[in-house]
Amino acid sequence: MSGDNKPNLVTMGKAAKAAARELAKLNSGQKNQALLAIAGELEEQVEVVLAQNALDIADGRAKGLSEALLDRLLLTEERVARLAADTRRIVSLTDPVGKETHSQLLPNGLRLSKRRIPIGVIGVIYEARPNVTIDIATLCLKTGNASILRGGSETLRSNLALVRVIQAALERVNLPEAAVQTIDDPDRALVSQLLRLDQYVDMIIPRGGAGLHRLCREQSTIPVITGGIGICHLYVDESADLEKAVDIVENAKVQRPSVCNALDTLLVHPSVAPAFLPQVAARLGQSGVELRAEGAALEILEDDSGGANVVAAGPDDFDQEWLALILGVKVVPGLDEAIAHIQQHSTEHSEAILTNDWANATRFVDEINSAAVFVNASTRFNDGGEFGLGAEVAVSTQKLHARGPMGLEELTTYKWIGLGDGLVRS
Amino acid sequence: MSGDNKPNLVTMGKAAKAAARELAKLNSGQKNQALLAIAGELEEQVEVVLAQNALDIADGRAKGLSEALLDRLLLTEERVARLAADTRRIVSLTDPVGKETHSQLLPNGLRLSKRRIPIGVIGVIYEARPNVTIDIATLCLKTGNASILRGGSETLRSNLALVRVIQAALERVNLPEAAVQTIDDPDRALVSQLLRLDQYVDMIIPRGGAGLHRLCREQSTIPVITGGIGICHLYVDESADLEKAVDIVENAKVQRPSVCNALDTLLVHPSVAPAFLPQVAARLGQSGVELRAEGAALEILEDDSGGANVVAAGPDDFDQEWLALILGVKVVPGLDEAIAHIQQHSTEHSEAILTNDWANATRFVDEINSAAVFVNASTRFNDGGEFGLGAEVAVSTQKLHARGPMGLEELTTYKWIGLGDGLVRS
Repeated sequence: MSGDNKPNLVTMGKAAKAAARELAKLNSGQKNQALLAIAGELEEQVEVVLAQNALDIADGRAKGLSEALLDRLLLTEERVARLAADTRRIVSLTDPVGKETHSQLLPNGLRLSKRRIPIGVIGVIYEARPNVTIDIATLCLKTGNASILRGGSETLRSNLALVRVIQAALERVNLPEAAVQTIDDPDRALVSQLLRLDQYVDMIIPRGGAGLHRLCREQSTIPVITGGIGICHLYVDESADLEKAVDIVENAKVQRPSVCNALDTLLVHPSVAPAFLPQVAARLGQSGVELRAEGAALEILEDDSGGANVVAAGPDDFDQEWLALILGVKVVPGLDEAIAHIQQHSTEHSEAILTNDWANATRFVDEINSAAVFVNASTRFNDGGEFGLGAEVAVSTQKLHARGPMGLEELTTYKWIGLGDGLVRS
Repeated sequence: MSGDNKPNLVTMGKAAKAAARELAKLNSGQKNQALLAIAGELEEQVEVVLAQNALDIADGRAKGLSEALLDRLLLTEERVARLAADTRRIVSLTDPVGKETHSQLLPNGLRLSKRRIPIGVIGVIYEARPNVTIDIATLCLKTGNASILRGGSETLRSNLALVRVIQAALERVNLPEAAVQTIDDPDRALVSQLLRLDQYVDMIIPRGGAGLHRLCREQSTIPVITGGIGICHLYVDESADLEKAVDIVENAKVQRPSVCNALDTLLVHPSVAPAFLPQVAARLGQSGVELRAEGAALEILEDDSGGANVVAAGPDDFDQEWLALILGVKVVPGLDEAIAHIQQHSTEHSEAILTNDWANATRFVDEINSAAVFVNASTRFNDGGEFGLGAEVAVSTQKLHARGPMGLEELTTYKWIGLGDGLVRS
């Protein structure tokens, strides 16, 4: 817990940078030994972790946190066992560090290559779920990066307990404890300090809401991975297979409404709207989805709501990441207007077109430049696991460094290596 | 010139973003037509450009700018012809936009690929030389990016004339003029406005000194490419071929002392220092290099300076990017201390080891994580042209997005494309 002394971020930063230099020298076998030690230590220390988590939960309940949130914060024996299993699974992933590409002998005589190396020190600011602590720390270790973690205040004790587990494991395999550190003080000023620690920290990953991302962009002098906010669109074109379209819309909206790749806005071509909207409303109504419909869509749904809750869309309803069982619905005259609507309202996370028309599918894919663009598939596929990355640290919606799901490779950078035998530039 | 009305950055940003969407749809042939039109227009309007440049030069002379700086600002018929030739050369480079990689059919049925796309709108803040205007604008166009340029106040008229040439060419090939815009007002507040235009601008490239980079990192809410500042080191190991070493040190220091990959600090193993330092001093002395030497190096050079100007190194002399005919010189006990010195003082731009020892070369390459690491070669090779990139927009020393010389590919990002036929996530 916080204690009397404030954490000294500069001291933490220096220690992290020194640790990162040690981690950068390790081969995959050594890093995997550390991961296995963490998994083992998690299993051995499960009682300690659960005891600290119980204190967080009790505090949360006293503060009146909702049962849903408390469940997100809760660790159980089974959940800790899963964290250990997840950590062991990372062992089997391919380590991108050390891979060389672009190897070539240049006309100037230089033998050149690009080698993947760790980024260095990664600062992660996250909210709520304590499993993120293990998740991020182990993915950073796998790629040879040190991490400075700043979890949510609701799980301060749980996060500290988990980081102590990690540090104990690191000590057992003779690696520096400072490879994984946590800021165990809820003072928000420490976040601002972290964001300006550019001498020691190489990348900031915020995992949280739009406010956190904005704060990081505003205050950070360190490159920030912006992402995780998805106002996701799906356009049902004139030629779409409506039966499949109902399945896809349901999947995109209902399967896991609280995540960033869930559907927020449904755009429909006028020629299929009268047939399609009541069908989709009937299906979504079964899951309790509320439809916020505009203009022609509202008229159609007021005639036949399929049993769903239909309300008139308000002025901001097409700029919402719902994260809930709500869906904006709009009829657009055609592909041009669908693209224009998306370009205006999207956060460039995930968009889809459902169509059987080659030209329209091609245009949608060419002109929509969101991180992930789908044809006849659910927006829910924009995910590191689904894309075969084996892991996911964040989903980037920015343009630089990485877009969409970030896996292990996106936790690395590269250096150029030039070899000669007494080579000068002419 | 600035005129009465301040440029409206929001208007410029909106126009740039709209233009970027048009550029993103173009194929390489269309973009090359624009480049050829610019080259032609530059040749046709050379008189207009030179007249505006002459006004800048006259102002600069009146302000007492040095002849060296005035020469950097000066455009001549020959230099404009070279700009046209450089623009035509970009036509022949491969356009990275549209390239798809990682194409695969995933176990979940999704046909996935990553497609290279333009970044969007790029803000470039630069100093002095007006040729950067053409250079950056054409490389951005080649990769389908719009640009907002902010050149130095000394060449305000020249830059505006060059941008008008570009815009005239764009109009001739029916592309939006707003694809290349310049902030033609020296007010520094406009730079701050540009740096916070994150709604419209996707990347900031500062090309200038450390102060400009710091300003951008401090103020920008847009990702910034930090780079171009090189405190570059070269370590001469015990086993180095001393004859080749003298050539390489001379090349690294003297060939073009004003650039970021020029050598700043020479580290020497004690066993070769007595023989090597007088040799290198004799060679560098011929070019008027001043040696700032410390401890043992100073003693050796005071005994035999080879005719070079030798002075005792001051406390900050190993934290200088000299950009001049000055070289810090230090004897270090061995590789460990060379690596430690570099890790402490380097800006992670370019470092080299000269050695014939396999283990030492390997350790240096493994443990030095600067953007470019050389063995038995000059630091001067860290350059887009030398690395075969065909072009160079900047040299990044940061960890994210790109490191070292940034060519055309580094002016692009990617989107994920997922194709299915009614695919839902299970």
